[in-house]
Amino acid sequence: MSRAYNFCAGPAALPEPVLQQAREEMLDWCGTGMSVMEMSHRSDEFVQIAETAEQDFRDLAGISDDYAVLFMQGGASSQFATIPLNLLPEGGSADYVNTGIWSKKAIAEAQRYGQVNVVASAEDSGFTDIPEPSAWRTSPDAAYLHYTPNETIGGLEFDFVPDSGTVPLVADMSSTILSRPVDFSRFGLVYAGAQKNIGPSGLVVVAIRKDLLGKARGLTPTMMNYQVIAENGSMYNTPATYSWYLAGLVFKWLKAQGGVEAMAEVNRRKADKLYGFIDANDFYANPIAPRFRSWMNVPFTLADDALNAEFLKGADARGLLNLKGHRSVGGMRASIYNAMPEAGVDALIDYMSEFAKERG
Amino acid sequence: MSRAYNFCAGPAALPEPVLQQAREEMLDWCGTGMSVMEMSHRSDEFVQIAETAEQDFRDLAGISDDYAVLFMQGGASSQFATIPLNLLPEGGSADYVNTGIWSKKAIAEAQRYGQVNVVASAEDSGFTDIPEPSAWRTSPDAAYLHYTPNETIGGLEFDFVPDSGTVPLVADMSSTILSRPVDFSRFGLVYAGAQKNIGPSGLVVVAIRKDLLGKARGLTPTMMNYQVIAENGSMYNTPATYSWYLAGLVFKWLKAQGGVEAMAEVNRRKADKLYGFIDANDFYANPIAPRFRSWMNVPFTLADDALNAEFLKGADARGLLNLKGHRSVGGMRASIYNAMPEAGVDALIDYMSEFAKERG
Repeated sequence: MSRAYNFCAGPAALPEPVLQQAREEMLDWCGTGMSVMEMSHRSDEFVQIAETAEQDFRDLAGISDDYAVLFMQGGASSQFATIPLNLLPEGGSADYVNTGIWSKKAIAEAQRYGQVNVVASAEDSGFTDIPEPSAWRTSPDAAYLHYTPNETIGGLEFDFVPDSGTVPLVADMSSTILSRPVDFSRFGLVYAGAQKNIGPSGLVVVAIRKDLLGKARGLTPTMMNYQVIAENGSMYNTPATYSWYLAGLVFKWLKAQGGVEAMAEVNRRKADKLYGFIDANDFYANPIAPRFRSWMNVPFTLADDALNAEFLKGADARGLLNLKGHRSVGGMRASIYNAMPEAGVDALIDYMSEFAKERG
Repeated sequence: MSRAYNFCAGPAALPEPVLQQAREEMLDWCGTGMSVMEMSHRSDEFVQIAETAEQDFRDLAGISDDYAVLFMQGGASSQFATIPLNLLPEGGSADYVNTGIWSKKAIAEAQRYGQVNVVASAEDSGFTDIPEPSAWRTSPDAAYLHYTPNETIGGLEFDFVPDSGTVPLVADMSSTILSRPVDFSRFGLVYAGAQKNIGPSGLVVVAIRKDLLGKARGLTPTMMNYQVIAENGSMYNTPATYSWYLAGLVFKWLKAQGGVEAMAEVNRRKADKLYGFIDANDFYANPIAPRFRSWMNVPFTLADDALNAEFLKGADARGLLNLKGHRSVGGMRASIYNAMPEAGVDALIDYMSEFAKERG
């Protein structure tokens, strides 16, 4: 098969030019006679790759020197423990917003380390709407306020950055990072598993305001201590070098596309098209309040669930892959991250339109 | 440059056929229209890749169903904390053998979680010899006995598996795994960072006897809980999928070479040649007791340290890369893992011989 349109929620499609460059450099990076994955992480060559990737990420996201940027391992799920171990003092409390499955996982892990106050929950709306911030029961004494800007499974996305006052704001940006401009100075810590908008799985990028370093609990595993990782330039031990390199290629690609402003335009257009089609067609439905519909993950249902298998089979045959919804939600889900070209969304809409005409 | 002989200690050289296959499959794995790094970890395709890799690893190493094999993240350094968190009960003690820098790191991290007894140390010999097991001050009550079968930096390697009686034996096999046959039934737990004999960094393979699961302390981060990882087939969260795939390619390559028995023959021959040359040539020296010389990492010094830079420059010019010794040891180090062909060792010896004649 030639390259397909891959709507997987993650690990997700990567930009084709990135994969092409990785292919070309696989056996010999820039005349060194080595693959990047064979290089010492302390070699001049790899340090240059790593530093360039970090700088490009900072440039793209607009992250200042007030923050340390860390390239860690273990995915966002490891951060669910790393965050309270570093930021939630014994006897303290942290505020969490519950907007879906990933929020709940973060909450469950944090509860093992201290008092967690769920200050707002989308549960009453069946996770289709985000409660008004004026009704959030936040505390000025919280160690931090954690939220999930985009729920990958439910397709519920914040269209605003919460105002946490002087309380550090912490966000799981795994599925939304670099998809549009964000004012990072509003945050104390952001983290993002790479496998959606950054690169391959096995890498998690963390940006932490430097004044929040050095607060880890005594028994925090050294590899989870943000200060240790920051002081060692993410090379306290051997980092995931090849994933870091691929992330760097993605950052270069994003810059060549015009950065996050340009991506935001395309991403908004892709999402508007797809939701517009779904809303205009009785055969398809998306349950999320329009204001909070995710630009990245578009869940939708068919009018008749009995047709799901046929829909997926026909999609596969056209090279429209991985449209099956998460088992906890059912139906379909199209993940349309940065690497999904607008032509992929057009092809999906064409297919959905045809399928609805034939079987609707 | 064409492909060089890369003597890096890790991340280390990978077999060229593995890199070639990875290159060929980069944009389209087996007609799926996707790179492996773009696949859902729960897809049929990736599950097949993952399960095949695990089975091949079990076949190669000879690991029975009494053990869980885990593909985790965070490197061996994360295991330094993960092991006591899972196996060292509050108030208990663990025995550790100190044979060099990596042992010391494991000891330092374990000491944060409980009583550590250093039952033997190679320090008296300047880390050139391993104390006789009869002199080890082991305890029958220890939660486990930890040792480092090969010290990557010092080049000191056990030629025996310690008898720990009923105490579970734990080993950091990062730099020796799959280099020769080992009786894995002697161990309670082995772990290996991938970036030496298995694949790219960002993956650590763990084999743990199943009766040792389920003992994690209450505050162990979920992602460090062996039982959770085992119960979820190493997919509690998104694993490092591309690294797992590459490890699978390395395992297939090892099988095609004839498995660990065949590798042991080549590895022994490579090491014998290099040490033999060093011993026969007054210009070079290796300080390790012959019985405990590492098959994998061969540190050596030149008769005159002032010639080090010239030696390295000449080596580089011939495509003999990364021979500089670790900063804590100085001199040179040739790492000759499975992926280093015998021809690479021959080329190194030719160069060393010529250099000694010209400059010795």
